[in-house]
Amino acid sequence: MKGTQLSTPPSPGQARITALETYDIRFPTSRELDGSDAMNPDPDYSAAYLVLRTDAGDGLEGHGFTFTIGRGNDVQVAAIDALRPYLLGRCVEEVCADPGSVYRDLNGDSQLRWLGPEKGVMHMAVGAVVNAVWDLAAKRAGLPLWQFLADADPQWLVSQVDFRYIADALTPEQALELLRDGKKGAAERATELRRQGYPAYTTSPGWLGYSDEKLVRLANEALAAGFRQIKLKVGADLEDDIRRCRTARATIGPDIRMAIDANQRWNVDEAVAWTKALAEFDPYWIEEPTSPDDVLGHAAIRERVAPIRVATGEHVQNRVVFKQLLQAGAIDVLQLDSTRVGGVNENLAILLLAAKFGVPVCPHAGGVGLCELVRHLSMFDFVALTGTTEGRAVEFADHLHEHFVDPAVIRDGHYVAPSLPGFSAELRPEAVDTYRYPAGAFWAADLAHRQAETAEVPA
Amino acid sequence: MKGTQLSTPPSPGQARITALETYDIRFPTSRELDGSDAMNPDPDYSAAYLVLRTDAGDGLEGHGFTFTIGRGNDVQVAAIDALRPYLLGRCVEEVCADPGSVYRDLNGDSQLRWLGPEKGVMHMAVGAVVNAVWDLAAKRAGLPLWQFLADADPQWLVSQVDFRYIADALTPEQALELLRDGKKGAAERATELRRQGYPAYTTSPGWLGYSDEKLVRLANEALAAGFRQIKLKVGADLEDDIRRCRTARATIGPDIRMAIDANQRWNVDEAVAWTKALAEFDPYWIEEPTSPDDVLGHAAIRERVAPIRVATGEHVQNRVVFKQLLQAGAIDVLQLDSTRVGGVNENLAILLLAAKFGVPVCPHAGGVGLCELVRHLSMFDFVALTGTTEGRAVEFADHLHEHFVDPAVIRDGHYVAPSLPGFSAELRPEAVDTYRYPAGAFWAADLAHRQAETAEVPA
Repeated sequence: MKGTQLSTPPSPGQARITALETYDIRFPTSRELDGSDAMNPDPDYSAAYLVLRTDAGDGLEGHGFTFTIGRGNDVQVAAIDALRPYLLGRCVEEVCADPGSVYRDLNGDSQLRWLGPEKGVMHMAVGAVVNAVWDLAAKRAGLPLWQFLADADPQWLVSQVDFRYIADALTPEQALELLRDGKKGAAERATELRRQGYPAYTTSPGWLGYSDEKLVRLANEALAAGFRQIKLKVGADLEDDIRRCRTARATIGPDIRMAIDANQRWNVDEAVAWTKALAEFDPYWIEEPTSPDDVLGHAAIRERVAPIRVATGEHVQNRVVFKQLLQAGAIDVLQLDSTRVGGVNENLAILLLAAKFGVPVCPHAGGVGLCELVRHLSMFDFVALTGTTEGRAVEFADHLHEHFVDPAVIRDGHYVAPSLPGFSAELRPEAVDTYRYPAGAFWAADLAHRQAETAEVPA
Repeated sequence: MKGTQLSTPPSPGQARITALETYDIRFPTSRELDGSDAMNPDPDYSAAYLVLRTDAGDGLEGHGFTFTIGRGNDVQVAAIDALRPYLLGRCVEEVCADPGSVYRDLNGDSQLRWLGPEKGVMHMAVGAVVNAVWDLAAKRAGLPLWQFLADADPQWLVSQVDFRYIADALTPEQALELLRDGKKGAAERATELRRQGYPAYTTSPGWLGYSDEKLVRLANEALAAGFRQIKLKVGADLEDDIRRCRTARATIGPDIRMAIDANQRWNVDEAVAWTKALAEFDPYWIEEPTSPDDVLGHAAIRERVAPIRVATGEHVQNRVVFKQLLQAGAIDVLQLDSTRVGGVNENLAILLLAAKFGVPVCPHAGGVGLCELVRHLSMFDFVALTGTTEGRAVEFADHLHEHFVDPAVIRDGHYVAPSLPGFSAELRPEAVDTYRYPAGAFWAADLAHRQAETAEVPA
């Protein structure tokens, strides 16, 4: 085999990337039905996690991960492992000055490209590595990522975007103009953000596996916590959905937004019929009514369920599909995800496309660490791109934050602006030790327990 | 972790699947620039290869693979390995009577689904395993796959298709009608197929890395071999493309079709301008002018380059995107691939969609074993679905066939109908021994050679 292509090797004496370590981290969330929905009845929230180490001697590391829901997390780790040769030996200063160089090298590798292109396991691996580079770059600058991005020169930000396949909808010149406009008033908005935070909505009450009693209790807790929007999972059984939507609406009253989420359960006609059957409960949006690949299907659904909004994005594979969702007028709300696409670079492209088309971004979060990461992107968008939070909120689900060094914090229904340098992707060492699969303390004990149970059963 | 979900376990005495073995097979094709194009300058044609073994005692195995172009083939193998628990212990008779049960279980696994859904590495792994099941099923029936499909009951074939996300374009009832119509005259067409074969076109002359002299020589050889269509890679340099297209057209004359293939190189505007600049050489189609994800982009290009046809599909991830390409009128020619999507089941859906929309299918082939596999699908389409080869041809590239037990054979520009039972996916044992990476004989010798070279260079 020919070797991988590296950028210019660093000069002697410059700090280099010396390691890319990977970890298969799995949390046993399926036992509590946290995260259960119509397509995902029993997720074990997981992360294919990586650490970039350098010989800079400053103690800084880059952290990144792909979120998965259990089985196959090992495949995701293998994909990240396959990118190691592209990172080892690279000059730290160069990659931090231009994370786009890593993004371009990984996405552009002709052989790896065959495995996507720019989609699925390989693309998420690229995203995890690229995000780790941004984490390191922001740490070296001593800034939380949102501020690192907001402070950046617009021309430099444009250089971080790959316009291939999107130039028919957004040119570099248009992106530059959007970013220059975004600079106006940015300092005031940064102050406002630090004071008030960024609006959040919560999915915690609405998991499909929860009882109605738990739904009511958690909805009331959400109101008490200051949230102005909740979300309910739907799509498994229409009668159940009608009852749960009625219960939720009665609990929260008419003024709180209630989104519904079908997690890709339906064909086009089913999506329209089912959504209309829930229209009396005034859903704010219908999320993932059908396949994330179906641009034309979303457009047809949107036309037929109006004025109910259509939202999607957590499974949208890349900027090319987001571009088309916007071009086709297929969505009212764009739900980017921090670890599904090619990292910060591709999410910059997606934020710019959404700004160009005037469609609000309400990112997907929850899972493992998605809240921690994605808040940075929306905060950058508010401070230095669209300048508004109108019609926007970042999803929040109250799981697993305790395992992160810089966890998401909610205050009065808003994400508090993070102040620690970096992208908040770092897991606490004890979380890695406990939930590393299969050798971590939790899984080793679990295996021993199950082996003991099996031994008790007569053959 | 919870275990994987299996179908009903077999009764005692029934044959079971006892092993799913995987192999990382890589051929050093980059050294000859075979397969070089504008996006893939140096592919090492590879296969993530698998063998299903059973305890039936009949000596039959199921073979399948994903084609890749080198780096990352190990990731693809890891993805196939992740599917092993879903196959082991299953009843051979049941899975062969209903390969769709395997397809549905693998595609429907809620946790693995997160890694796609239905796209990229994980989806190609599903396709490889599903294809191996079809190979085994056809072998047990004693029929080549094309005939196994052509002989099948239309109702049963419909049961093999997943209509989720495509029912707005093709209903089960419509599919059944197409298949029932396809039965009329099928026996006569099977006889015709055995006599004449199925039309092929050749890409062998047109790789971007070849000299003009080699292009002319290979184009003349293609004419002598009875091909009525050749294909040229374009998109790296316009002046080169103009010269190569002129040379090729002068060589083959006005009556032989000459397709051109940009391998996703362009944005929409570039695609239009570049294609128009080559229009004087009468290209039959422009293939992969832009991202395979860009349905709307293809539609825009097609409208602007007419009457030159637009073709795509080798990188189209699943039936949902093919559905949209057809709905949007974005393509004149549909180029399905045998190992990109979810196996025979999903390719049945794609063939049915194409038949419904009246768009000819000219499958992608070449690489490792793609010719061997995909000929079966087009032959089934001719015998028992569309009943025609009009405007249709299967790609042929003359590489690596010698490594297969049932290699593709071309006679007078046509694929000969295979007669050996199965899907022709089996590699010869000596190919596995030689090209298994990194321990096979070729790669071990190559490594030793390179280590010796390195040792000779002063430090």
